[in-house]
Amino acid sequence: METQKKYDKHSPIGVFDSGLGGLTAVKEIIEQLPHEDIVFFGDTARVPYGNRSRETIIEYSRQDMRFLLAHDVKIVCIACNTVDSMARLTLEQEFDIPIIGAVSPAARKAVQLTKNKKIGLIGTFATVSSGAYRKLINKLAPDCTVYSQACPLLVPLIESGRFHKGDAVVETVLRDYLLPLQAQGIDTIILGCTHYPLLYAIVKDILPGVEIVCSGSASTEYLREKLAALDLLNDSETEGKRRFYVSDAPEEFATHGSVFLGMSVREHCEKADPDIYQ
Amino acid sequence: METQKKYDKHSPIGVFDSGLGGLTAVKEIIEQLPHEDIVFFGDTARVPYGNRSRETIIEYSRQDMRFLLAHDVKIVCIACNTVDSMARLTLEQEFDIPIIGAVSPAARKAVQLTKNKKIGLIGTFATVSSGAYRKLINKLAPDCTVYSQACPLLVPLIESGRFHKGDAVVETVLRDYLLPLQAQGIDTIILGCTHYPLLYAIVKDILPGVEIVCSGSASTEYLREKLAALDLLNDSETEGKRRFYVSDAPEEFATHGSVFLGMSVREHCEKADPDIYQ
Repeated sequence: METQKKYDKHSPIGVFDSGLGGLTAVKEIIEQLPHEDIVFFGDTARVPYGNRSRETIIEYSRQDMRFLLAHDVKIVCIACNTVDSMARLTLEQEFDIPIIGAVSPAARKAVQLTKNKKIGLIGTFATVSSGAYRKLINKLAPDCTVYSQACPLLVPLIESGRFHKGDAVVETVLRDYLLPLQAQGIDTIILGCTHYPLLYAIVKDILPGVEIVCSGSASTEYLREKLAALDLLNDSETEGKRRFYVSDAPEEFATHGSVFLGMSVREHCEKADPDIYQ
Repeated sequence: METQKKYDKHSPIGVFDSGLGGLTAVKEIIEQLPHEDIVFFGDTARVPYGNRSRETIIEYSRQDMRFLLAHDVKIVCIACNTVDSMARLTLEQEFDIPIIGAVSPAARKAVQLTKNKKIGLIGTFATVSSGAYRKLINKLAPDCTVYSQACPLLVPLIESGRFHKGDAVVETVLRDYLLPLQAQGIDTIILGCTHYPLLYAIVKDILPGVEIVCSGSASTEYLREKLAALDLLNDSETEGKRRFYVSDAPEEFATHGSVFLGMSVREHCEKADPDIYQ
């Protein structure tokens, strides 16, 4: 098992993602835990993970973990649902540090919210085909049924700026993905990908009355509980420092990252040294 | 400069691409040069290259080249317009083997076809922003003007099966990309990405009367000329052998590859050994 250097409650929270979508999770952490320092790593040179094999996703994730551990983080949040679904169990066996996933908190939240026991799930190919959400929900609530839909076009559409209400293309694609779930009578849907919170308003229009669970929001609630339980909550009263590292050129990331984070990343963004993680 | 082992006219042609789109170029080679053996490498574990930085694309391409050279190919075809635009000059300096690009043959063909000297270009972000087509066309025919449009959504749409006439989503997206070019009065358009031949019929509908140049078709004509000039055309009379290697799991590739190749790849497809190229 790979060991971690010393950390304490003033050490940063580590967050990694296959790309920049994970910034929606960072946004939640900043809002809910404003005094925490954060080190974010986005593997933009190899994004997206969503259509890759399990073996490849595990290997990339190991490298992402090593990068964060080199920054002495106190806990690691896997922002990416794909990585969590495919690699978390392996990472937990190999790395001696608390790891917060994206799947388990969202699954728990959905089980709390559903009344008719029919839960919908949208995500990448890898997230859906892993069956991670289904297995977890069946364990938490064996009477729940999960109806899932892989949505490989949503990330590229969002990254092309097509995520606003009134965009006929994204609305048509999303409707094609969601209507089969609606036909099953779901009363709760999990947005199982960091990009999807940007489609919240359109999902709400297509599925009126359906409860919407965003994985980033749910996992931040769990992160706070976990830090408190481990006595690792930062008791500082100043605003936390945030650093953003990417594996590809930071300029692109700085431009698009602000859409996901809701604030500028430009001043705190740099390219990750490949020697640290590869 | 990296040197190549011995090869002769019976050695295979090497073709590489960031993913499986390059199979449209392989299809052209099989049709035009049926007696040639072919080794194809698709870097499916890191596809797509189109939105990555120049530096990253060059490094990945070097590794792709090394994989093919390890198979004693006699010539390398860069099927991917992005790699050609970003990395070919560097690769030519570093590797001692003839290299056929995708850009130069298509540019030459477009210059031959245009009458009003207004040429349109569609491709990935990287291909368009590199300016490779523009520079080359301006050199070949300084009186030509190139109007270009990056189309980051087309590859994901095609890979989601949305490439058939009558699909409102791909038709809307393509119309949004093409109408500004039409407004400029282009009489010729270059489909500057290996995936785009699958959209040929829709492009023809949106741009009636406009000449369409596919980069894979143009570069195969050039490949044949080059092999003849070097006395490297295979004089065998049996059908060539084709082997397909990918960096991610071959099952996915085998399923989707046939769409691009127009025939099954399953029997000849295997995972590339990372030790050979990384």
